[in-house]
Amino acid sequence: MKKIGKQTFRIKDDVYIRDVFTIGGKKEGEGPIGKEFDMIVDDDLWGEDSWEKCELKFQKEAAQHLMNKNNLNTDDIDILISGDLLNQITSSSFAARDLMLPHIGVYGACSTMALTMGLGALIIDGGFASDIICVTSSHFCSAERQYRLPLEMGGQRHMSAQWTVTGSAAVWLSNSGSGPRIKNVTFGKIQDLGVKDVNNMGAAMAPAAYDSLKQHLDDTGTEYDLIVTGDLGTVGKSIVNKMFNEDKNSIESKYDDCGTIIYDIEKQDVHAGGSGCGCSASVFGAFLYKKLQNKEINKLLFTSTGALHSPTAMLQGESIPGIAHCVGIEM
Amino acid sequence: MKKIGKQTFRIKDDVYIRDVFTIGGKKEGEGPIGKEFDMIVDDDLWGEDSWEKCELKFQKEAAQHLMNKNNLNTDDIDILISGDLLNQITSSSFAARDLMLPHIGVYGACSTMALTMGLGALIIDGGFASDIICVTSSHFCSAERQYRLPLEMGGQRHMSAQWTVTGSAAVWLSNSGSGPRIKNVTFGKIQDLGVKDVNNMGAAMAPAAYDSLKQHLDDTGTEYDLIVTGDLGTVGKSIVNKMFNEDKNSIESKYDDCGTIIYDIEKQDVHAGGSGCGCSASVFGAFLYKKLQNKEINKLLFTSTGALHSPTAMLQGESIPGIAHCVGIEM
Repeated sequence: MKKIGKQTFRIKDDVYIRDVFTIGGKKEGEGPIGKEFDMIVDDDLWGEDSWEKCELKFQKEAAQHLMNKNNLNTDDIDILISGDLLNQITSSSFAARDLMLPHIGVYGACSTMALTMGLGALIIDGGFASDIICVTSSHFCSAERQYRLPLEMGGQRHMSAQWTVTGSAAVWLSNSGSGPRIKNVTFGKIQDLGVKDVNNMGAAMAPAAYDSLKQHLDDTGTEYDLIVTGDLGTVGKSIVNKMFNEDKNSIESKYDDCGTIIYDIEKQDVHAGGSGCGCSASVFGAFLYKKLQNKEINKLLFTSTGALHSPTAMLQGESIPGIAHCVGIEM
Repeated sequence: MKKIGKQTFRIKDDVYIRDVFTIGGKKEGEGPIGKEFDMIVDDDLWGEDSWEKCELKFQKEAAQHLMNKNNLNTDDIDILISGDLLNQITSSSFAARDLMLPHIGVYGACSTMALTMGLGALIIDGGFASDIICVTSSHFCSAERQYRLPLEMGGQRHMSAQWTVTGSAAVWLSNSGSGPRIKNVTFGKIQDLGVKDVNNMGAAMAPAAYDSLKQHLDDTGTEYDLIVTGDLGTVGKSIVNKMFNEDKNSIESKYDDCGTIIYDIEKQDVHAGGSGCGCSASVFGAFLYKKLQNKEINKLLFTSTGALHSPTAMLQGESIPGIAHCVGIEM
């Protein structure tokens, strides 16, 4: 068995993250890692007639550019694994339709990028596929429309609220080549401490992030150079730090969060930071992946976190469960 | 590589479908296979205060009964893979929260049961897990509320419309034991011939069913005793038959559809038949699984079909893409 500890799967053979392609929106392009994106799209409709159609274009173009850049045809890719925040994961389904690849659709809210990469690594290491593309996306406007209030209303945002990233990243996993390798994968258990504040997703997700991180570190015993969650924002990040500190096992010196990396929290008026499936995806693709390639870090624990928030469940008095999936990557 | 043909994965080691547990609603209990369900719940709220909470109870109880029946603790199960029709797959998330198992959430509309079983088989055969539980659910009332019109309106249903099954099935996959084994898995490509009629999901899904079935049969060359799609209903089933006949490769004599198996089409006022993630799930668990166990059939091709219908995308003029995933099972 390739299971280690209680909940972690060891990837025995080499599963390389061979390449990535990232697309960001205008605000993401103006952020601290803006220059690292492969492409920035200033128009929040990208020539489409709805934000939803724009979002699916982000996903499709990210995957297509990744394939073109590496001379990959559809026959070279065994599976496309993708997901997003929209109901019926429409960005993913429509993009997958146009990409004409065998498709596995997943839903894990903002935890999706690590979920797709973890699943892809298992499938390649299991000997079933040689090449898999993982894609996720989010779009500020389509997410606000679905989860919160009409943008046209111009509502005041809460200070603990996060800003949904307009962006997408496509990741090419392969059993050949070179580059950073996925070594360990932990699929999270859903944690729910009863948070019902839809303007504080960071607090809703933090217990899940802590649970999965702790389990992954216990299971593997790996000393990571950098541990990154995504996307807890400033509020969730401080809770995770507090939980580890209370555990007398601080990770603070080597810990950061995608939601706080992607924007300049002070200057970009994003309140608690970034969120959305596109957040950890684009921070991984545009920033963390390059740190691995440049050998600035050798061991990265990439942990996407999702608030499984449902507007319908909220109206029925339910809380917001959280989940976090960990992918341990080594150069 | 365990890939055969263009798109199919061969499960090399034994992955047994060790047991199943099915729960159906009142209408499902009155249908032709009603007596085969493990449990029938007559109350469409099951004591809860919303249909959505009732649906998550279906999923949770199905998994819990399956575990209790087999003396399985949470530590015995490596992963729970689940999905449903509701936005943010809330039935699955909340059930997974209460079951306290590591969770992979998937979305494939009504194709979800085969998707979860296919993924589970790959993960076990890949050597990562010994025991996995796959669950899906649907509920007539929660689906109507989300996808169509308020039930209170009492709208007239179209003759090509299908009736969403109120039901759930939990399936236990294991690398040990006995019983039917999963042998081949084909994840489908999304097909979209431009159907925009939300009252004719069968027509929207049929091209995807045909595409995946044809690919699976080409890739494996297996002579199946029974080929079952789920849930195309009468309209989609006749289209699939027509497509194979035009191909001069009729499957008609050994082909059936879960949407036409679960209800008495003439007497139960369901128009084109059953649908929903719970349809192929409960027909598999309550009916097909037993046919395999009793050796009435030895080789079953189980193909769940999903209409990736989005009310938002429809309002924006988009069509309804379809997907179908195949799981080849042998006794």
